[in-house]
Amino acid sequence: MPKGAIVTREEDFPRWYQEVIAGAEMADNGPARGTMVIRPWGYGIWELMQSELDRRIKEAGAENAYFPLFIPESFLKLEAEHVEGFAPELAVVTHGGGKELEEPLVVRPTSETVINHFFSKWVQSHRDLPLLINQWANVVRWELRPRLFLRTSEFLWQEGHTAHATEEDALVYALRILRDVYRSTMVDVLNIPVLTGHKTARERFAGANRTWTCEGMMGDGKALQMGTSHELGQNFAKPFDITYANATGGTEYVWQTSWGVSTRLVGALVMGHGDDFGLRLPPALAPTQVVVLVVKDDPEVGAAAEALASELTASGHRVRLDTRTDTSFGRRSVAWELKGVPVRVEVGPRDLAEGNVTVVTRHRREKQNVAVGAVAGTVGAILAAAGPELLAEATAARDARTVDAASLDAAVEAGSVGFARVPLAALGSDGEDRLAQHALSIRCLQRPDGSLAESGDPDYDLVAVVARSY
Amino acid sequence: MPKGAIVTREEDFPRWYQEVIAGAEMADNGPARGTMVIRPWGYGIWELMQSELDRRIKEAGAENAYFPLFIPESFLKLEAEHVEGFAPELAVVTHGGGKELEEPLVVRPTSETVINHFFSKWVQSHRDLPLLINQWANVVRWELRPRLFLRTSEFLWQEGHTAHATEEDALVYALRILRDVYRSTMVDVLNIPVLTGHKTARERFAGANRTWTCEGMMGDGKALQMGTSHELGQNFAKPFDITYANATGGTEYVWQTSWGVSTRLVGALVMGHGDDFGLRLPPALAPTQVVVLVVKDDPEVGAAAEALASELTASGHRVRLDTRTDTSFGRRSVAWELKGVPVRVEVGPRDLAEGNVTVVTRHRREKQNVAVGAVAGTVGAILAAAGPELLAEATAARDARTVDAASLDAAVEAGSVGFARVPLAALGSDGEDRLAQHALSIRCLQRPDGSLAESGDPDYDLVAVVARSY
Repeated sequence: MPKGAIVTREEDFPRWYQEVIAGAEMADNGPARGTMVIRPWGYGIWELMQSELDRRIKEAGAENAYFPLFIPESFLKLEAEHVEGFAPELAVVTHGGGKELEEPLVVRPTSETVINHFFSKWVQSHRDLPLLINQWANVVRWELRPRLFLRTSEFLWQEGHTAHATEEDALVYALRILRDVYRSTMVDVLNIPVLTGHKTARERFAGANRTWTCEGMMGDGKALQMGTSHELGQNFAKPFDITYANATGGTEYVWQTSWGVSTRLVGALVMGHGDDFGLRLPPALAPTQVVVLVVKDDPEVGAAAEALASELTASGHRVRLDTRTDTSFGRRSVAWELKGVPVRVEVGPRDLAEGNVTVVTRHRREKQNVAVGAVAGTVGAILAAAGPELLAEATAARDARTVDAASLDAAVEAGSVGFARVPLAALGSDGEDRLAQHALSIRCLQRPDGSLAESGDPDYDLVAVVARSY
Repeated sequence: MPKGAIVTREEDFPRWYQEVIAGAEMADNGPARGTMVIRPWGYGIWELMQSELDRRIKEAGAENAYFPLFIPESFLKLEAEHVEGFAPELAVVTHGGGKELEEPLVVRPTSETVINHFFSKWVQSHRDLPLLINQWANVVRWELRPRLFLRTSEFLWQEGHTAHATEEDALVYALRILRDVYRSTMVDVLNIPVLTGHKTARERFAGANRTWTCEGMMGDGKALQMGTSHELGQNFAKPFDITYANATGGTEYVWQTSWGVSTRLVGALVMGHGDDFGLRLPPALAPTQVVVLVVKDDPEVGAAAEALASELTASGHRVRLDTRTDTSFGRRSVAWELKGVPVRVEVGPRDLAEGNVTVVTRHRREKQNVAVGAVAGTVGAILAAAGPELLAEATAARDARTVDAASLDAAVEAGSVGFARVPLAALGSDGEDRLAQHALSIRCLQRPDGSLAESGDPDYDLVAVVARSY
């Protein structure tokens, strides 16, 4: 793909997004409406995210399990109240094994109902608590306006479901996931700064008492909800009859949490860091961290490139050697840039004659001449610095687009191009309706200093973060 | 679960299997017919298998990707010939987004059609070859007689699909997967000996020119097909129009392979190694390799157990500390045995007063008194030896039940209780029909020395392995 083949973000951000996804060979539309083919480059990024999340989830004590794709329709009625919003989103299997089914099967939009059904069997005594379960799976929610990674009829995600003996235990766990799993992965691995807070009653999950969220700012100033952690109270424990015998023999309902993030995070990475030349990957999430390019077909150049690739691999980096000299160097170089590979090492005959190669830092688009013997050190330094630098850049960009507003009108103005922080009290009782008229919403509520509200904090002391959103 | 709670293998092997799965908390039946809930103990085993397989698949150069769950019905017609066998196995989505769909969607029984559809887009030039793609996913094939892990309507698997420039390249790759990924994982990780060979025309995948298989012997003498690798020729390339421009500009069809293993491998592990006391896990696949049991509630015992657990964790083992002294020691001990944890370290006040603990080797059911200071060394030695010992035991058991037969009658007799090795020529042209009357089949064909046949080998020089099978 030649340079300039993608539109700039300024010109048309949604088209830029599509062109990056296509040009970087991250994903394609599937043949069935709203479905997605995740190509190796996109899937490789997801696998790395998954492994970072999975490690943190296990450190938080949760164990992975797997629940069925198909849910009898009658199951969903048990949580009718919470699932109503899903009805138009459901895909329904009516035929199986060559005939019509007696009871239709719903393709899971979430495994909430099945998991709670089994929780009621598995939890008997206080000794069985806390029960901490996570699942990596595909789920289906019918989408009329799909967008790759951000909104697809089928997506990949993890959903955690836990049961605790007390309300306090559940709250502490929901926040532990929010901070130690989600925020930590987003900030330290995706290098995207996120605001954390809780949702208003209007925005929270219908089954939750409190929904905590991580909100990132994308390159167009819009907010993306990157992950949520819910404190569910006993809203599922009661209809699903999940009870336990306490230490004195009495029967009590459990207290629960649920939490999830999805392949949407791959979209966040594109929109959070991408520039007009394509993707910019944090090294921790780059399937290839360093590509060594043979500029021109030449035995000495080939040998030097191979030696450098081996040396860099031995240093523990994920390295690819590009020897496809029957494709022009410019074309290959642009393609690797579009894919966001953090470092390119270009080995050409002229440089090499002087003992040098060119090292290109993707996120800063900086080229430097480096002596062959110094390449490993230079590359290691770039890779170590790239993540924090991307985070600093994204944080500065977000902060530059974040404005303190004192009134609803001021919040509308600032929220239309970035984030507006406005006292909840200033929005009035119909504030959310009025924001919605401007396609704005409250992304989260926080204390004025940005920290999480405690249950005792009165709402009117809180600040609302107002923005457009995906 | 008290001792003797499970039936013996001798008494009722299928019931024994179910009771091990239930007692070890590996899986439950899902609410929709034929579906399965994989509980943390079963899923933990699968995750470890997956990671061993995934590493080998990547070493073989394949990249992971993800294709959609839903396939338009029309897609399946393209490979009607190969898919005919699937029709009664399909689950069909007729409603989505609240209304009836114009074209029904099939829940993938395999992703073969979608993947080949995209291969025809992605492959243009000989430079795009080989194209080596793997997918980890759930698939659905309607099952009327489900059995947990062995045969469920939904199961988890990996499916590899590759395209090559020449027939020879495809064959070499199919065999590389068979040996370096499948056989290596089964023998070196699952510690189950497998016979490798190719299927007869009757038994092979309809779309394949040659199907290679790994066949293991289970505890009841039956064969289990544990994985297959197919050399597909151009059987999919032609209907899906997967062509490439060769170096001289001509257009050629690609040559392909496909290959898969599934959660069935978890069933293989149960039936390949289990004894009358439950599961016996190879350490490489044990979610917990060592459990340290506090026999009785006592501060000194508790402190010693905790110190031992820390020491063993620091040695790199997966360790669990069981301090649930409000449940009887016997009960817990039997439960861990049923789960197949390779080593139990039992810390009780009497032993400890003499500076000792009891170390139990699960697969040999051997107890020994070990001085506290020597526990780490003893445990390390048991864990290092357990895998090879399980393999040796399984190999001896299989060999004891494998008989060389010279006629069909002799093959029927031996194959009904184990494996019969019989010259293919001795079975006659209606041999497979006659075997089928005895519920027997040819599991694979090999050279007389057990090695893989080459394409030039005449069939009549080959040996057929005859057995009952799952």
